[in-house]
Amino acid sequence: MPTPDSPEPPMARRGFSTFQPGETGPLGTVELTRDEVVAFASAWDPQPFHLDEAAGLASPLKGHAASGWHTASLLMRLLADTLLAGARSMGSGHVRDLRWVKPVLVGDRLAARYVVREVRPSSRGDRGYVETDFVMENQNGVTVLTMSATLIIGS
Amino acid sequence: MPTPDSPEPPMARRGFSTFQPGETGPLGTVELTRDEVVAFASAWDPQPFHLDEAAGLASPLKGHAASGWHTASLLMRLLADTLLAGARSMGSGHVRDLRWVKPVLVGDRLAARYVVREVRPSSRGDRGYVETDFVMENQNGVTVLTMSATLIIGS
Repeated sequence: MPTPDSPEPPMARRGFSTFQPGETGPLGTVELTRDEVVAFASAWDPQPFHLDEAAGLASPLKGHAASGWHTASLLMRLLADTLLAGARSMGSGHVRDLRWVKPVLVGDRLAARYVVREVRPSSRGDRGYVETDFVMENQNGVTVLTMSATLIIGS
Repeated sequence: MPTPDSPEPPMARRGFSTFQPGETGPLGTVELTRDEVVAFASAWDPQPFHLDEAAGLASPLKGHAASGWHTASLLMRLLADTLLAGARSMGSGHVRDLRWVKPVLVGDRLAARYVVREVRPSSRGDRGYVETDFVMENQNGVTVLTMSATLIIGS
């Protein structure tokens, strides 16, 4: 279980037309413990460099590195607790260019933020698509993850 | 914890030059239980339609749907247990076009497979990049997830 430190979501749930290109904001921060890194990897990505410090140090990752799917799931949790908790979220159907730019190591503290790139209504009339870019940085200001997703938000 | 039913990985670990464009194979199958769907969503994606059957039925997902990150993590687990367990895996830095084509619902049984699209050596000399397409289908033969990833495989 992550222990995110997320900003409070707004009380009212936003519809898609309240989103504007260029809107940006923080999604919160989270620190990765060794136990969480091992637990996620054991369940979902049991490669040696995610399970064991010595194997991680001997690998190109140069340390005990979290699974990239762990980092992405942490971003999802922060997003769900903030932007989506305050919006009429209907999920997402598409992530483009999920990049694990640098290894995320045990003890790293990650901060996530978002930027809205494009907003367009769906032909269904009851929802819209919010194309959003995401960035996660570590405690040294180094970008570790980037991705773009199509958020589906109700009217 | 998933309960994958993965083919046995080969004994020897393959280097990247053993991969050829067009190579394809199964990665195994896995069934999603309600408890697993709720546990993953509670930890990583606590949106109502992932947590609760009634909320899922009332949503555009039309059922108690797994988080898309849960489905992707299941694919990662199957991949780690099979193709990567039998290769000199160094991880991955890039996923393109992760598409949740159709909802994955509690009780679905998913089968995953891969197709190698392109293989190229790294300029570092000790590894190569295996561009691989992945597909997950449900028990009705409906594609529920597609993605392309760059696998980094040692020489």
